[in-house]
Amino acid sequence: MKPILIVTALLCLYLTPAFAGDTPPSPLSNKAAIELVQTHANYLWTLIAACLVFFMQAGFALVEAGFTRAKNSINIMMKNLMDFSVGSLAFWAIGFGLMFGTTTTGFFGTSGFFLSDFTPDGDPWILAFWMFQVVFAATAATIVSGAMAERTKFTGYLAYSFVVSALIYPIFGSWAWGSLFNGSGWLEGLGFIDFAGSTVVHSVGGWAALAGAIVLGPRTGKYTKDGGIRPIMGHNIPLASLGVFILWLGWFGFNPGSTTTADTSIAMIFVNTNLSAATGCVVAMIVSWIKLGKPEVGMSLNGALAGLVGITAGCANVSPSSAIIIGAVSGGLVVFSVLFFDKLRIDDPVGAVSVHGVCGAWGTLAAGLFNMEGVTLAIVMVQVIGILACFAWTFTMAFGMFKLIAGTIGLRCSPEEELEGLDFTEHGGNAYPDFNL
Amino acid sequence: MKPILIVTALLCLYLTPAFAGDTPPSPLSNKAAIELVQTHANYLWTLIAACLVFFMQAGFALVEAGFTRAKNSINIMMKNLMDFSVGSLAFWAIGFGLMFGTTTTGFFGTSGFFLSDFTPDGDPWILAFWMFQVVFAATAATIVSGAMAERTKFTGYLAYSFVVSALIYPIFGSWAWGSLFNGSGWLEGLGFIDFAGSTVVHSVGGWAALAGAIVLGPRTGKYTKDGGIRPIMGHNIPLASLGVFILWLGWFGFNPGSTTTADTSIAMIFVNTNLSAATGCVVAMIVSWIKLGKPEVGMSLNGALAGLVGITAGCANVSPSSAIIIGAVSGGLVVFSVLFFDKLRIDDPVGAVSVHGVCGAWGTLAAGLFNMEGVTLAIVMVQVIGILACFAWTFTMAFGMFKLIAGTIGLRCSPEEELEGLDFTEHGGNAYPDFNL
Amino acid sequence: MKPILIVTALLCLYLTPAFAGDTPPSPLSNKAAIELVQTHANYLWTLIAACLVFFMQAGFALVEAGFTRAKNSINIMMKNLMDFSVGSLAFWAIGFGLMFGTTTTGFFGTSGFFLSDFTPDGDPWILAFWMFQVVFAATAATIVSGAMAERTKFTGYLAYSFVVSALIYPIFGSWAWGSLFNGSGWLEGLGFIDFAGSTVVHSVGGWAALAGAIVLGPRTGKYTKDGGIRPIMGHNIPLASLGVFILWLGWFGFNPGSTTTADTSIAMIFVNTNLSAATGCVVAMIVSWIKLGKPEVGMSLNGALAGLVGITAGCANVSPSSAIIIGAVSGGLVVFSVLFFDKLRIDDPVGAVSVHGVCGAWGTLAAGLFNMEGVTLAIVMVQVIGILACFAWTFTMAFGMFKLIAGTIGLRCSPEEELEGLDFTEHGGNAYPDFNL
Repeated sequence: MKPILIVTALLCLYLTPAFAGDTPPSPLSNKAAIELVQTHANYLWTLIAACLVFFMQAGFALVEAGFTRAKNSINIMMKNLMDFSVGSLAFWAIGFGLMFGTTTTGFFGTSGFFLSDFTPDGDPWILAFWMFQVVFAATAATIVSGAMAERTKFTGYLAYSFVVSALIYPIFGSWAWGSLFNGSGWLEGLGFIDFAGSTVVHSVGGWAALAGAIVLGPRTGKYTKDGGIRPIMGHNIPLASLGVFILWLGWFGFNPGSTTTADTSIAMIFVNTNLSAATGCVVAMIVSWIKLGKPEVGMSLNGALAGLVGITAGCANVSPSSAIIIGAVSGGLVVFSVLFFDKLRIDDPVGAVSVHGVCGAWGTLAAGLFNMEGVTLAIVMVQVIGILACFAWTFTMAFGMFKLIAGTIGLRCSPEEELEGLDFTEHGGNAYPDFNL
Repeated sequence: MKPILIVTALLCLYLTPAFAGDTPPSPLSNKAAIELVQTHANYLWTLIAACLVFFMQAGFALVEAGFTRAKNSINIMMKNLMDFSVGSLAFWAIGFGLMFGTTTTGFFGTSGFFLSDFTPDGDPWILAFWMFQVVFAATAATIVSGAMAERTKFTGYLAYSFVVSALIYPIFGSWAWGSLFNGSGWLEGLGFIDFAGSTVVHSVGGWAALAGAIVLGPRTGKYTKDGGIRPIMGHNIPLASLGVFILWLGWFGFNPGSTTTADTSIAMIFVNTNLSAATGCVVAMIVSWIKLGKPEVGMSLNGALAGLVGITAGCANVSPSSAIIIGAVSGGLVVFSVLFFDKLRIDDPVGAVSVHGVCGAWGTLAAGLFNMEGVTLAIVMVQVIGILACFAWTFTMAFGMFKLIAGTIGLRCSPEEELEGLDFTEHGGNAYPDFNL
Repeated sequence: MKPILIVTALLCLYLTPAFAGDTPPSPLSNKAAIELVQTHANYLWTLIAACLVFFMQAGFALVEAGFTRAKNSINIMMKNLMDFSVGSLAFWAIGFGLMFGTTTTGFFGTSGFFLSDFTPDGDPWILAFWMFQVVFAATAATIVSGAMAERTKFTGYLAYSFVVSALIYPIFGSWAWGSLFNGSGWLEGLGFIDFAGSTVVHSVGGWAALAGAIVLGPRTGKYTKDGGIRPIMGHNIPLASLGVFILWLGWFGFNPGSTTTADTSIAMIFVNTNLSAATGCVVAMIVSWIKLGKPEVGMSLNGALAGLVGITAGCANVSPSSAIIIGAVSGGLVVFSVLFFDKLRIDDPVGAVSVHGVCGAWGTLAAGLFNMEGVTLAIVMVQVIGILACFAWTFTMAFGMFKLIAGTIGLRCSPEEELEGLDFTEHGGNAYPDFNL
C-alpha cells in the first residue's frame, strides 16, 4: 500500500504509464482514457457484487443451522465452509473451463482450466469474471446442503460438493451462459432468458437437493408409520432470520451484479429484486396464516427467499409491477410446495427444493411471460425447454452421483450417529457446550 | 449475464450504442461520455450505499432481539422482516409519491405513486433514488419496533408499520427533502440542515416510538407499585452487539450515501460518522461506569448508536473535531435520557426513544451550532423549528394512530400472552426449542 | 440529501462548478474531467473497502466469543467495541501522525496529528486515506484480544488498546508504509514487500498477542500439573463460524482495497485472496483429520484465516497458482503452530498467535519467494529483515507494556473473578440470562 498521492499523480492521463495497474505504453487518447475509467467502474462493480454474493454463504449456513437441531450445527458450518472452499478449488481446476471455456459444441467448454488462460500480460478481466462466477458456483452447491441436513456423512458430502462445482453446475451453466471466450451454449442460442440464474443456479441447486433428499431418505422420526408428519423444530430462529437478511443483501450483488457492467440498468434490477422479495415475504406470511392458523416465521422467511429466487431470471427484463406479481406467486407457491413435498414424505429440512427448485422454475417461466418487450409463444417455449433441460440434466446426474456415493464411500450416517448428532460423531465437537445440550 | 468481453467491446465510446444499458442513438461527444461515466459512478455509489442501509434492518432486528427476552424472539424477527416488506410495498404505492412527488404546497407530493413516473424510456435514476429512499423509510419504521417490544399484538404492529411507511414518515420527509421532481418542502425552503436524517429519519422513528410506548404502557413487572424499576435483561448480548456492529457498518451507507453522488465529499462524511460513533461509545461507557458503577454493555452499545444518530444531520457540514464533540454529547445524553424515561415509567426496552428521538434532536441542533461555514441565530432558529415541527407532527400523528389501532383491532396483547411469550401465542413457534426455554 | 436531478445537472462538465463537492472555479478540460472521475472511483473503492475492513471488527468479536465460554461474552464484546472506539480516537490523535506524517528519519512521522493537516480547503484524500488506515489499525489491536481472552482486567485491556493503536502499530507501520506526505520508512527503502500487511498488521497483532498471553499466563485449569492439556470448549460454534465468514468477506476489502485505487489490478488480488483462503481451509481440515482423528471445526476455521493472513503480503505480486501453495502451507502451519504453543503452555484461546503471528511471517517470506517478477537472495533477505524487525520491535514493546500495566493498574483478574466470569465481575451483566448459565 504505497502512499497514495504518488499514485494519484500517476493518474494524470497524459503521462506514461497512464494508469497504475494498466499497461498502455504511450499516452492515451481522451477516448481511450474514458473507456479505461469505465472499465475500472466495471471491475469495481463486478468485484463488489462478488463480495455480496460471497456473503450469501454465511446466509445459507445460518438459515440451515437455524432451521435444524443444535446437535448438528458444527456439521452444518463445516459443510457450508467446505462447499465454498472445495468448490473454489474445483471451479478453479475444472468447473470454470467447462462452463466458460471455448466451446464448439455448445455443450461444454474446453479451455481455461486452472485459470491457465490468464497470464501476467493477459486480460485481468478473466480474473474478475472468475471471481464473480466462483461465488455463483458455490451458491448452487450450498443450496443442496440444507435439503440433506442432519443425516449425511461428511465424507459423502465432500464428494458431492466437489462433483457439483466441478461438473454438474458448470456443464449446465455452459448451455445457458457460455462462453467467455469463443462460442456459445445451445440454450443461449435459442434465446433462453435467465439473467442471473433462476434456473442456472437455483434450479440446479434445487433439483440436486431433491435427488439428495430422495436418495438419503427422511430423518429418523420425521414421518410416522401411520402417515403422520412430525415437525422437527429449528434450534435458533434469530440466527435463521439473520441468515435471510444476509441472503437478501447478497441478492443485491447476485442480480444487479450479473450485469458485470457499471451502468444505469442496475437500478431497475435492484428495485425488481427488492419488490419481489418483499411481496414474496408478505404473501407467504398471509398464506401460512390462512393455511396454518398463524403467521409462521419459517414460511415468511422462505417467502422472502422464494421472491428472490423467482425474480432472478427476469430481474432485467420485467417491470417493477411485474416483479411484484412474480414475487406474490413465488410467496404462495413456496408454502404449497413445502407442504406438497412433506406429503410425498420427501424430507427437506429447510425447504430448499421448494425455494430454489420450484420457484426457480416459476421465475424462469415468468421471465418469458412478463418480458417487457413482449411475449410470444416461441419465447415461452424456449423458457419451458430450459426448465425441462435443467431438471432432466440435474436430477439425473445428481441422482446417479448420490447413488454412486451411497454405494461406495457411503452417504447416510447410521441411526445411532443421527441420534447422537453429527457434531460429535463426525467432528468430535459440541456447538454449545455451555448450554449443556 | 452475457459474456463480458463483448460488452466491454461495446463500451468503445464512438460506437453506437455507446454504453450497454444506455440509449444514445448517436456517437457521444467526449464531454457526454465523461458525464456518463460519472453518472455510472453515482449509480454505483447510491445503490451500494442502499445495500449497506438495507443491512441495517438486520442490525435493528438483532439489537432488539438481543436486548429482550428469548420468548419474544420470533415475534421480533417477524416485526423487523415485515417492517421492511410491508414498508417496501407501502412506500412503493404511496409513500414515495407523498415524499418526493411534485409538490406545490411544500407539504406533500402528489405524483410518483406506484413508481408510475418510471417508464422503460424514462430516467432510471428514479429507480436508483427510490431504492435508496425505501431503505431509509424502512429504517424510520423499524426504530419503533424496539420501543414496543414484548407486548404488542402482531396485527396491530402490521397496521402501524404500513401507516408509518405510507404516511407519517413520507409527509414529514417531504417538508425537509422533497421533491425529486418539481417544488420543494417548506422546511427545506427555510434552509433546514438535516443532511442524512437525524430528524427526518431518526427523530421521526424516535417520537413515534415514544407515542407507541406511552399508548402501550410498560411491560408487566417492569415497574413495581412502590416506584421501583425492575431490569428485564436481554437474552443474547453477543447478538445485540453484532447488531450494533452491523448498524455502524450500515451508517457508512446512510450518511455518506446521502450524497447520492460519487465525489470526494464522501471522505469527510465517513470520518465524521466514525469519529462521532467512537466517541459516543467511549463516553457512554465512561458515564455508565460513573453513574452505575460498571462499564455497562447496553449503555456502551447505545452510546455508539447515539453518536451515529447525532452526527447524521451534520455529517457533511461540520469538521471532524466537531464530530467528536457531537458524539461525546450524544454518548452522555443517551445514558441520562434512558434513565430519565425509566423514571417517567415509560418502558422502552431498547432505548429507542433516547437513541433516535433525543439524540436525533441534539444532532439536528448541532448541525446548526457546528456549521463549518459559520453559525447565525437564524440558522439555529430554523434547526429548532425543524426539531419542533418533527415532534409535533410525528408524536401527534403516531399517538392518534396507536390510539385508533388500540380501539379497533387492538394494540396490546393480553397479560397471559405476554407471560407466555409472543413467539408461541402469535406465531405458534419457539425460537430455541433445543434449549428448553 | 438534495434532490438529485439538480446535482446531476450540475455534473455537466463545462458548467462551473464542474462537479458537486469539488472546487474547480473554471471549466474543466476534458483531461482534468477524466482524471476527476477516476479520482471519484478511487474514493469509492477506498471507502467501500474501508467498510468491509471495518466489518472485520464484528468478525473478530464473534470468533473470539464463539471460541470461548459464555460467561465472558459481554467482556469480549466490550473489548472488541472499545478496540475500535478507543483505537479510532488514539489513531486520530496520535497514531496516524506517527505512521503517515512527514518523516525524515524513516522511523516515525511527525505531522498530521489530530487530522490537523486537513483543512476545509485541503485535499480530502487525507480523510479517505485516514478512514482506510484507521480500520487497519483497529485490526492490529483487536487480534490481541483473542489471545488474552477470559482472564484480563478490563481497565488493563483499555490501556493496552490505546497504546497499541497510538504507538506500537503506527511506529512499525511507518517503517514499512510511511509516509503519506514526505519521506519514507526505512524498511520500505530497502524494498520490503508487504502489500496489505501480513507483517505490518497481522504479525504486529500476533506478536503483541504472544507477549500478552505470556505475561498473563494461562487460564486456570487449562494446563494440569502433570503436564496435561485440558481443552476449554468454545460456547457457540455457529457464531464463531459466522465470524470467519465475515472476516473472509472483510479481507476482500483488506487486500484489494490496499490498492486505494480503482483499477484492474484488484481482480488478481481478489482471486489470490480467495484461493489462498480456500486452500488453507481445506488443508487445515485434512491435517486436523490426520493429526486429531476428526475434521475439526476450530482448525478448519483457523485454516481459512491462516490462508487469508498468508496471502496478505503477496496478494498483488504472486500468481493465483502460487496463492494456492501459500494457502496450503498456511493451512498446515496453523495446525502445527497451535499444537506447538499449547505444548509450550502458552494459552491462546483462539489461536491468534499462530494465525496472525506465524502465518503473517510465513506470508511475508512467501511474498518474496513467489514474487512473479523473479526472486533474488536480496529480495528474500529484505523480507527476513522485515519479519525479524517486526518481531523484535513488537514483542519487546508489547512485553514491556504488558509488564508495566501488570505492575500498575493490573492486567489479570483474580482467580475468583475468572471462575465467576468477567461478564458479571467486570460489567455487572449476563450475556444469556434466559439460558440460566
